[in-house]
Amino acid sequence: MTAPLYLEDLHVGQTFVSGSTTVTADEIKAFAREFDPQPFHLDEEAAKDSLFEGLAASGWHTAALTMRLLVQAFPLAGGLVGAGGETTWPRPTRPGDTLTVHVEVLEILPSRSRPDRGMIRARSETRNQHGEPVQVSITRIVAWRRPV
Amino acid sequence: MTAPLYLEDLHVGQTFVSGSTTVTADEIKAFAREFDPQPFHLDEEAAKDSLFEGLAASGWHTAALTMRLLVQAFPLAGGLVGAGGETTWPRPTRPGDTLTVHVEVLEILPSRSRPDRGMIRARSETRNQHGEPVQVSITRIVAWRRPV
Repeated sequence: MTAPLYLEDLHVGQTFVSGSTTVTADEIKAFAREFDPQPFHLDEEAAKDSLFEGLAASGWHTAALTMRLLVQAFPLAGGLVGAGGETTWPRPTRPGDTLTVHVEVLEILPSRSRPDRGMIRARSETRNQHGEPVQVSITRIVAWRRPV
Repeated sequence: MTAPLYLEDLHVGQTFVSGSTTVTADEIKAFAREFDPQPFHLDEEAAKDSLFEGLAASGWHTAALTMRLLVQAFPLAGGLVGAGGETTWPRPTRPGDTLTVHVEVLEILPSRSRPDRGMIRARSETRNQHGEPVQVSITRIVAWRRPV
């Protein structure tokens, strides 16, 4: 367990690398049944004739798996709370893929009105086992100042 | 079942409204256990002392529920495939909230290189039962031309 990080502990260019997680075809289909029930996320045969040319995880499944890895890898004090951001999925997550998240702090923005906190802007890249990005996000995240 | 929509069927300013879904505290915790295991998504007591001041759904849970509603509400031919976009969470989804998604087509972008498809840019607003936005997304989505 790493000590929680406060705003003062962060600097631009700082990087974090997560552990990894492997996603199965059954997990891809279970997520899709609940949240994104489209043929290319549910059925190998139907997926062959789709844009994805084979079973592909929902982008929201990739995003959720990324979050799970980030919660472990990026131990901000008070938790990891995103205010929003931009996400792209350069390629889909496939059955059997092993994902790892690489995070970089892009910017540190102390709050002008709230002396106890700030925001950071961070870039996270979720990579498969070939090192290829399956998700790139630039996100604003709450960071607390160390209590005095 | 609405007929699937092709690029030619869409116009700027067109709107769609989804059905609704209600999320329970148990569902919020189950999603969090799997994808976003932080105290404010897992436990009412711990959540009281957090930024959220009470149990709150993971933003990725709100995003996944939004996707489920969109798949029903926005029947694009070939399925709903997002290339990426910006998402903000103006307030959290709470236990018992009933969510509805309102979509508007912002822009239609035929592909220059691929005559069979284009992209649209759409804004989706996920609202709770008080009409308050819990998620606002501006997303690029693949749209296919009607086969000739």
